[in-house]
Amino acid sequence: MSIVVHCPDPAETAEWRDRLAALMPEARVEALEAAAAPEAVRYAVVWQPGTGRLARFPGLRAIVSLGAGIDHVLADRALPAHVPIIRTVGRDLTQRMREYVALHVLRHHREMPALAAAQAAARWQQIVPPPATGRRVGVMGLGNLGAAAARSLAALGFDTAGWARSAREIEGVACFAGAGELGAFLARSEILVCLLPLTDATADILNAGLFARLPHGASLVNAGRGGHLVEEDLLAALDSGRISHATLDVFRQEPLPAGHPFWRHPGVTVTPHIASMIDPETGGRIVAANIRAFERDGTVADLADAARGY
Amino acid sequence: MSIVVHCPDPAETAEWRDRLAALMPEARVEALEAAAAPEAVRYAVVWQPGTGRLARFPGLRAIVSLGAGIDHVLADRALPAHVPIIRTVGRDLTQRMREYVALHVLRHHREMPALAAAQAAARWQQIVPPPATGRRVGVMGLGNLGAAAARSLAALGFDTAGWARSAREIEGVACFAGAGELGAFLARSEILVCLLPLTDATADILNAGLFARLPHGASLVNAGRGGHLVEEDLLAALDSGRISHATLDVFRQEPLPAGHPFWRHPGVTVTPHIASMIDPETGGRIVAANIRAFERDGTVADLADAARGY
Ligand SMILES: NC(=O)c1ccc[n+]([C@@H]2O[C@H](COP(=O)([O-])OP(=O)(O)OC[C@H]3O[C@@H](n4cnc5c(N)ncnc54)[C@H](OP(=O)(O)O)[C@@H]3O)[C@@H](O)[C@H]2O)c1
Ligand SMILES: NC(=O)c1ccc[n+]([C@@H]2O[C@H](COP(=O)([O-])OP(=O)(O)OC[C@H]3O[C@@H](n4cnc5c(N)ncnc54)[C@H](OP(=O)(O)O)[C@@H]3O)[C@@H](O)[C@H]2O)c1
Repeated sequence: MSIVVHCPDPAETAEWRDRLAALMPEARVEALEAAAAPEAVRYAVVWQPGTGRLARFPGLRAIVSLGAGIDHVLADRALPAHVPIIRTVGRDLTQRMREYVALHVLRHHREMPALAAAQAAARWQQIVPPPATGRRVGVMGLGNLGAAAARSLAALGFDTAGWARSAREIEGVACFAGAGELGAFLARSEILVCLLPLTDATADILNAGLFARLPHGASLVNAGRGGHLVEEDLLAALDSGRISHATLDVFRQEPLPAGHPFWRHPGVTVTPHIASMIDPETGGRIVAANIRAFERDGTVADLADAARGY
Repeated sequence: MSIVVHCPDPAETAEWRDRLAALMPEARVEALEAAAAPEAVRYAVVWQPGTGRLARFPGLRAIVSLGAGIDHVLADRALPAHVPIIRTVGRDLTQRMREYVALHVLRHHREMPALAAAQAAARWQQIVPPPATGRRVGVMGLGNLGAAAARSLAALGFDTAGWARSAREIEGVACFAGAGELGAFLARSEILVCLLPLTDATADILNAGLFARLPHGASLVNAGRGGHLVEEDLLAALDSGRISHATLDVFRQEPLPAGHPFWRHPGVTVTPHIASMIDPETGGRIVAANIRAFERDGTVADLADAARGY
């Protein structure tokens, strides 16, 4: 069995290749660009493969996304049709995202940006928000990551709601479904967290129209994808006070260009796409197990639905 | 029954007085300074009463501390001996402290100060800490607040330990007790949280000797009392790198004086004693219930032990 690996950064490609080679002695694991016999390649393990790279392998059985999202694979305009796409998810990914969401929701809830400004001015200014039991938080997307994040927020005491395409039941979380219930969900979300996948239906969803349906002065945490957010609409909403603060982990262009207004806007906290990561150490084991399961059974639990887009 | 109220800030005194008067129509509630008949006063509800104010009331049945700590009452050098002291604790106090500790431990764990510095320099710098399951946090003090904070940290995934005077059992938290086990507790605490009461035994406990027993580069969250921390020792430990960052909510002098080095030290996050508060709205109900219970039974669950100091 032959496996190829591709990340935009060659050092990362090498790291994943070495890790998988060590874990899968039964396979030949190479960097995609170095594949000696393209017709022998059965699995491509990729992050942002770009356009055309995967079409080179006529015998591909599955594409493995090095992440929970598959938007970066579907962006390949020459993507071989009908090749299944396996997502990579796991305990560490979920754990890290729970931490990120808890941290940044708490930061907004407890008004850390205002407290930091007070410290910078050596000003003793006691800001006393209600307890989290009186703070309404909403999570968009209730998949692997969104459901886990919503549960953690509820456990911390927040009055937590969630929104997904289909009806879900999560203990301690008020669940809303579909376009019909989006308005009611937004109207109660003082802190809004986006953990949607990027699809045709969710692209640009964080826009002026949506911001107008939130409580005035709501805050935003986007850990989904940069393509969810209409950047100019956020800047306008921050300037008008409709949105009080935004924490953004993902951007239309990554790395965020040095001159981008988000870097220096006092209402924006930028984190460099680090909300949650799969590292080769634990991720390698998950990828190896998924490839072996797919070889054996012809399917696997973490199969994405390309038609649906996630 | 006559009740007097005293806070250092007259506006706060008035707020608590009005709240208690509304809740306890059976009592005469006055500001302490305005008490018309000192010999009729049965309860004094106080925050930082200073020295000598309480000795004016010969018929005092109990002193009510407007907070969980009683150090500010015991600091009264003319404190009438043998008058019981009732602490004020409750769900909101615990809730707010859980939030504060979760927020600031997550901030240290996820290296937010370094990420904020990167943002200020428009630098895309991915910092990837281990998941919280690989991060060891230690909570000093496992009372009402410490135990709740430790439970929340464990629920967020942290490898959590706690330390108290006596042996405790808390699910998911490794508990250490007494001076004999302090070293083992400190040696494993990459992030140390202080939620001790201020007593003769705990004053100055956060000092150079203690910092030297922590893992190199550990960080600190002090939400106990300013008197726990030897300020010069912290500044030296920050400068040597032994302590990487400290979040301080409490100070020897409050408000923290404008010229104090903590305000501008890049290794210190200052919050203005807002980790947890009892507000008159919910706190008033707790104080009223405690006074009524004490009137009826001569004791109450939240009685402090003045000899022990907490
Ligand atoms: N920033 C980071 O570091 C980072 C790391 C990993 C992942 N992510 C992002 O997080 C996303 C979510 O990951 P996941 O593993 O939780 O995905 P998932 O398990 O596929 O769940 C997706 C959720 O979004 C909902 N959804 C999809 N389309 C929708 C629509 N049009 N309207 C309403 N709800 C919709 C789904 O609804 P149903 O439940 O009805 O299907 C589901 O609840 C990824 O796609 C990726 O973009 C970011
Ligand atoms: N920053 C804020 O906004 C804020 C707000 C409220 C309270 N506080 C502070 O938080 C403190 C704790 O409140 P609490 O309600 O949790 O107090 P508590 O219920 O009285 O618990 C105190 C804990 O500290 C432990 N302890 C006391 N002396 C010790 C010693 N010498 N060595 C080791 N452990 C010792 C006790 O051990 P045992 O279990 O063995 O008795 C107990 O676990 C208060 O006293 C106050 O200073 C701060």
